[in-house]
Amino acid sequence: MINETNGSYYAVIFSSRRTEGDNGYNGMAEAMEQLAARQPGFLGVESVRDASGAGITVSYWSSLEAIHNWKQNESHQIAQGKGKSDWYENYTVRICKVEKEYSFDRP
Amino acid sequence: MINETNGSYYAVIFSSRRTEGDNGYNGMAEAMEQLAARQPGFLGVESVRDASGAGITVSYWSSLEAIHNWKQNESHQIAQGKGKSDWYENYTVRICKVEKEYSFDRP
Repeated sequence: MINETNGSYYAVIFSSRRTEGDNGYNGMAEAMEQLAARQPGFLGVESVRDASGAGITVSYWSSLEAIHNWKQNESHQIAQGKGKSDWYENYTVRICKVEKEYSFDRP
Repeated sequence: MINETNGSYYAVIFSSRRTEGDNGYNGMAEAMEQLAARQPGFLGVESVRDASGAGITVSYWSSLEAIHNWKQNESHQIAQGKGKSDWYENYTVRICKVEKEYSFDRP
């Protein structure tokens, strides 16, 4: 991932707790992931949610401008509204500059 | 969290996939979380793992020095060794500077 970005890129950490029930969430989440992947500057996404409803999604972007443009996307704005009205008890968004990364893969 | 840090702090994003079985992981994970919480500069941690073994843990720190010191902690070094020998199929660590944050709480 770092090779695509000349060594500098950004992460959006989305920590959330879901409300009870689906209420159309899973369909929208899948649609948003597909739409995000087509946005300029999108580098990737990782998402985990446990049985208790706690979730962390981290998306990676080439620039702050790319993050801003995705936040303003019309379909994403609708999803953000449903997030507040229906899907989330609470969430925190943190926009971060990735300064260093390293990985391990079992040999 | 941001009030403790004069507006600037760091996140360590740890994305991982576990091996099969516990192999002493849960006990060590709990011990490491308690030990991290006593480190200078520790601000908080969020952790989610799903039934498939995919996990994201994000810890928050007041400075890069605090992150470095935690990585060098002796007990944590032992845990890191067990992580590679026993507990993880793969992981990526990203050290990030938090540039902006906002939150939603259901009224």
